[in-house]
Amino acid sequence: MFGRIALIGIGLIGSSLAHVIRREGLAGHVAVSTRSEATLGRARELGLGDSYTTDPAEAVRDADLVIVSVPVGASGAVAAAISGALKPGAIITDVGSTKRSVIDQMLPHMPEGVHFIPGHPIAGTEYSGPDAGFAALFTNRWCILTPLPETDPEALDTLKTFWRACGSDIDQMDPDHHDRVLAVVSHLPQLISYNIVGTASDLETVTESEVIKYSASGFRDFTRLAASDPTMWRDVCLHNKEAILEMLSRFSEDLASMQRAIRWEDGKKLFDLFTRTRAIRKSIIEAGQDVEMPDFGRQAARGDGSKS
Amino acid sequence: MFGRIALIGIGLIGSSLAHVIRREGLAGHVAVSTRSEATLGRARELGLGDSYTTDPAEAVRDADLVIVSVPVGASGAVAAAISGALKPGAIITDVGSTKRSVIDQMLPHMPEGVHFIPGHPIAGTEYSGPDAGFAALFTNRWCILTPLPETDPEALDTLKTFWRACGSDIDQMDPDHHDRVLAVVSHLPQLISYNIVGTASDLETVTESEVIKYSASGFRDFTRLAASDPTMWRDVCLHNKEAILEMLSRFSEDLASMQRAIRWEDGKKLFDLFTRTRAIRKSIIEAGQDVEMPDFGRQAARGDGSKS
Repeated sequence: MFGRIALIGIGLIGSSLAHVIRREGLAGHVAVSTRSEATLGRARELGLGDSYTTDPAEAVRDADLVIVSVPVGASGAVAAAISGALKPGAIITDVGSTKRSVIDQMLPHMPEGVHFIPGHPIAGTEYSGPDAGFAALFTNRWCILTPLPETDPEALDTLKTFWRACGSDIDQMDPDHHDRVLAVVSHLPQLISYNIVGTASDLETVTESEVIKYSASGFRDFTRLAASDPTMWRDVCLHNKEAILEMLSRFSEDLASMQRAIRWEDGKKLFDLFTRTRAIRKSIIEAGQDVEMPDFGRQAARGDGSKS
Repeated sequence: MFGRIALIGIGLIGSSLAHVIRREGLAGHVAVSTRSEATLGRARELGLGDSYTTDPAEAVRDADLVIVSVPVGASGAVAAAISGALKPGAIITDVGSTKRSVIDQMLPHMPEGVHFIPGHPIAGTEYSGPDAGFAALFTNRWCILTPLPETDPEALDTLKTFWRACGSDIDQMDPDHHDRVLAVVSHLPQLISYNIVGTASDLETVTESEVIKYSASGFRDFTRLAASDPTMWRDVCLHNKEAILEMLSRFSEDLASMQRAIRWEDGKKLFDLFTRTRAIRKSIIEAGQDVEMPDFGRQAARGDGSKS
């Protein structure tokens, strides 16, 4: 499909792309670039690409598709570094969790004659680094593209075809709307998870070993997200600040209202609050976005012989 | 092990007990009782017991072990109803998520000569009702017993043996400490889940269908808990009010501090907050309280062929 693909950044997303590109035969040559020698060495050991370099400009030379998979705060520096080496007609995309900030950082560095199309595959796990990738990561997951008004329709179609070949369904969205949607479905849950795990670590009357021991009663569900890459998430917070602050403040208002209902023992209000949230889970399962098995299928995965 | 066990309440926990009692041959006769005719009928269709009645007093007559598995707010009424029918020497226990309130409700109704030993198996799924039960629910899960100072050691040993036969490990704790521990590992995560799902349903700029569509980016992890039984959780809030309010207020303080770090773009503070939470997940996995597979093993459970 492409002569040469350059993967700039080879963490969970970059390495998963490497796997699926190989499996589907989407490129003649995969050039892998990352800033850290150690990570690059690991990518080489894993055989993720055909060539390896710490110089992103060298990787993108002659590439038909460049995929930038770095923490969003590093997008501007990468764009500046590759700018002079991009091949005319090349498609440059990214996978960042915020889109307005990535556009603001990268667009000024994009030379005439290349196609810059920001994107965001809605896929991930709590693991990071080149060892974490696997080819099925994008299977049946959405990939949101946020093309600019001037984006060439043909280049956009080519990028869509690429992501479909990776197993994704494609959606298209305005970058600012993307940032608001992700603030609620991804950034807010992530921050709440970090926060609750932090709160639980700080108690005087309950020990950390008790928190760990009895975590199956609910707490453990939050620790998965809270194990995610801190650099990535620091950058997301700094680069989608307004939308995140708005969601956090709505969340806090709602929480204050729930606290008040508990203090005043308003059982009816609590029952109503706890009832309306059930339907959403059902819809998520029906939309194929989660498994129906109890406990996310954990017990089935453990081979406990429990019903699924 | 027992001649007759009475199960008062036949929801997720009661029906799981029915399954494991049968599998392990722990009783000669299982008497099932629940208030609702419809639920009782379903329990009969499922063959969960040997006799069925809506009258808890009838169920407990001649029972050697009585297990009360009802929303904690109903404990007092059940205790009053069974009080006169309890067999001398019988063990009466419960499975409620709060212990001080259950003791306060039930103890006054306990006649001389019976052994009342409050308990709480740390096990559950987001499903409820008699269809939700399965025998492996308690396997490798903790069961916390909160005996009273006057509890007979022999009766306590018998109850421990019962729970071990169900697959559980036993812990013993002061009831008030139990309520504080559970407030953080269970009640707080539960309320936060209800709250975030509520917040996400109320947005004007992001539609509910978008929330559902892109939920795999984090949000879906919260919807599992938020699909839990609303009656049970209303009662928990009302019956562990002080500990829950304290945890909510610590959580809110921490969240305000995180919000401030985002507003003032304090990247270092955010990075530090997001780093210290990783270790806890590792400890939970090492303690055998969660699976190590990415995404709780969801993809493995779906049979996507992803690495586990």
